[in-house]
Amino acid sequence: MQLQARLLHTPEGFRDMYDGECRDEKSAEHKIIKTMHLMGFEDVRTPGLEYFDVYKKERGTVPGNEMYRFFDADGNTLALRPDITPGIARLSARYFADSSKPLRFCYCEQTYRNIPGLRGKLKERTQTGVELIGDDSVLADADVIITAVKSLLSVGMKEFQIEVGSAAFLNSLIEPLSLSDEDMATLRNHIDNKNKFALKAFLDTKKDRIPKARIDVLTGLTDDFGTLAEIMSMENIKPVTEDDSFYRTYEALKRLKKIDDILGAYGVSDYVTYDLGLIGKLGYYTGIIIRGYTYGSGESIVSGGRYDDLVSQFGKNAPAVGMAINMDLLIEALRKSGINPHKPGKLIHIITPPDRMQDAVKLRSDFMEKEKASDIIIDENAVSIRTEEEDQ
Amino acid sequence: MQLQARLLHTPEGFRDMYDGECRDEKSAEHKIIKTMHLMGFEDVRTPGLEYFDVYKKERGTVPGNEMYRFFDADGNTLALRPDITPGIARLSARYFADSSKPLRFCYCEQTYRNIPGLRGKLKERTQTGVELIGDDSVLADADVIITAVKSLLSVGMKEFQIEVGSAAFLNSLIEPLSLSDEDMATLRNHIDNKNKFALKAFLDTKKDRIPKARIDVLTGLTDDFGTLAEIMSMENIKPVTEDDSFYRTYEALKRLKKIDDILGAYGVSDYVTYDLGLIGKLGYYTGIIIRGYTYGSGESIVSGGRYDDLVSQFGKNAPAVGMAINMDLLIEALRKSGINPHKPGKLIHIITPPDRMQDAVKLRSDFMEKEKASDIIIDENAVSIRTEEEDQ
Repeated sequence: MQLQARLLHTPEGFRDMYDGECRDEKSAEHKIIKTMHLMGFEDVRTPGLEYFDVYKKERGTVPGNEMYRFFDADGNTLALRPDITPGIARLSARYFADSSKPLRFCYCEQTYRNIPGLRGKLKERTQTGVELIGDDSVLADADVIITAVKSLLSVGMKEFQIEVGSAAFLNSLIEPLSLSDEDMATLRNHIDNKNKFALKAFLDTKKDRIPKARIDVLTGLTDDFGTLAEIMSMENIKPVTEDDSFYRTYEALKRLKKIDDILGAYGVSDYVTYDLGLIGKLGYYTGIIIRGYTYGSGESIVSGGRYDDLVSQFGKNAPAVGMAINMDLLIEALRKSGINPHKPGKLIHIITPPDRMQDAVKLRSDFMEKEKASDIIIDENAVSIRTEEEDQ
Repeated sequence: MQLQARLLHTPEGFRDMYDGECRDEKSAEHKIIKTMHLMGFEDVRTPGLEYFDVYKKERGTVPGNEMYRFFDADGNTLALRPDITPGIARLSARYFADSSKPLRFCYCEQTYRNIPGLRGKLKERTQTGVELIGDDSVLADADVIITAVKSLLSVGMKEFQIEVGSAAFLNSLIEPLSLSDEDMATLRNHIDNKNKFALKAFLDTKKDRIPKARIDVLTGLTDDFGTLAEIMSMENIKPVTEDDSFYRTYEALKRLKKIDDILGAYGVSDYVTYDLGLIGKLGYYTGIIIRGYTYGSGESIVSGGRYDDLVSQFGKNAPAVGMAINMDLLIEALRKSGINPHKPGKLIHIITPPDRMQDAVKLRSDFMEKEKASDIIIDENAVSIRTEEEDQ
């Protein structure tokens, strides 16, 4: 690329924000963080660069080759933060090793993913989210979902759905099958794509090893889901409620039911649907999986879940649940819906003759007191002070 | 370093923020950005990674070897943002090439400097600042200084000083000497260190080439300065006001006088002193130089100035002036002074028996309405709902 182009353009996957878009995002960030504070979460900030090990595949959701990496002066490998959760898990283990009370953290940070060749995808993203560490209760699961809903509502979003799945439910069905890694990937892939035909065909090849009831439940995962009541009454879920070999599966369903009851008490049920075929990253999520969608975006605007095995990798035995909002997608969705988190204001120009500077300054101070934005322009030909408003 | 250490610690020069420190910083950021908005500045955000050329030494204040650099997939060199100003200059040239009206931008971003071996110095810093582009007026210079003062006042800072120097003044004295690069570095170094003795000895070696009046003015740059009125009345400044060969120098002084008058009108003179020996980065600043200090920190908490030759390097001919506040030093200074930008609040625990969930949720919603932070704890043994407050 030519020097002049490099001097004007941002690298692919990176963008500038100006002309109100940045103010919209900052305003949305502020409203969301305020909502999180009221839900009892406290701000933390972890560094933009960390030891690569913090984000390694056992602990993060981002493959190593999608991270921006460097060597520091001592030969350690550092990574530019691809994700927030591992850093906060590390922080919790470092400073709150002996604390038994739940830690409620919130954040707003940029993350970086070096995704090669995927045009149109942002490599730098702003994420706002919460982590609830040291609480394995149903209430904690519900709190994270409610925070997601209330956060989106706080910026004026109306049309969105939070989909809730359960890795515990899914794992309880899949693990007893003792499939090879390859077969496991195929199975998960078919469920993820809701490809009932391929899933059925695949399970047919295993029918000598897998009981019919289990095949029925698995096949049912490709169905469209809705309310939890609908799910519980589905024909192919029946064995789960009746057959003892489905004990773990049934427990996972019962947990979703309890979460659903709490969401009902908060009056946010309309924003939540359940999808038992929701697939998270293999081995990362251990309980609920959360995905939020809005119209006009195929990518999830909210993502999260329960990952009880993460924090212990940093030396603190603590269950955890969290979610993050993709602010770039959120702002895009808001703009498409004609919603401005920040009401455009006016910039008042105070136009003054040179010898009335003192009065112009006084006027500007008055505007500041009234929280109105202004600047001063000297007009050599003016005979008195006047003001002009400009949209901002 | 061992894996377990890498998993708990942040790399040298990077740190975690928690236990109220992060909330303090976010609160201070918010107050400062609000002040900047009221002064007529608008939010912009540039990417964390840019083409290295944007920050190269002609355009930035950070040496290339102090940047974190990568190659992208196309073989371009990218740099992790070491500084904000070049990115905003690029943004102005890209989107506002044909705009003749002044651009008033503000920002709050992290910057990264790979400073080897300097223990205790942060490699990741948060900066909040303004850039006023396309306005070469005295009013623009004053606006940036006033914004610095009002920003620091907005977070409760009381004891600070903004030092104002002038690269135009200094260059007008030094350039006619036609010194070698080495001599120029020596001269600047002596002025910077206020080493009157060494400066005098150095100038003595040049006395066959440099008129005595100029030597006197230069030697005077190591004096302690104060108000502009004091400076103007100093004996060794006299030639500047009387000798035609000092025309540019005198113009630079007159400009400072006009700025001082405007600062007086705003009533912020007490926070501003002048130091004509203030040295900026060679060739970067073209007009005023701004440095802010507070007690207990040797490093400047505010820095900036006028750099009329920067934006044109990106293809837009526009003068510019700006300043940035080092938020990490600011928070440290505030904490040392016992000032909390964010008043610690209370987290209200709503402790409820399992069967009173609906009422507990209602109570929490009421607290949210009243902007009080709360969470819900289920107590199997409780017979009624009670609340407990915890400091946050």
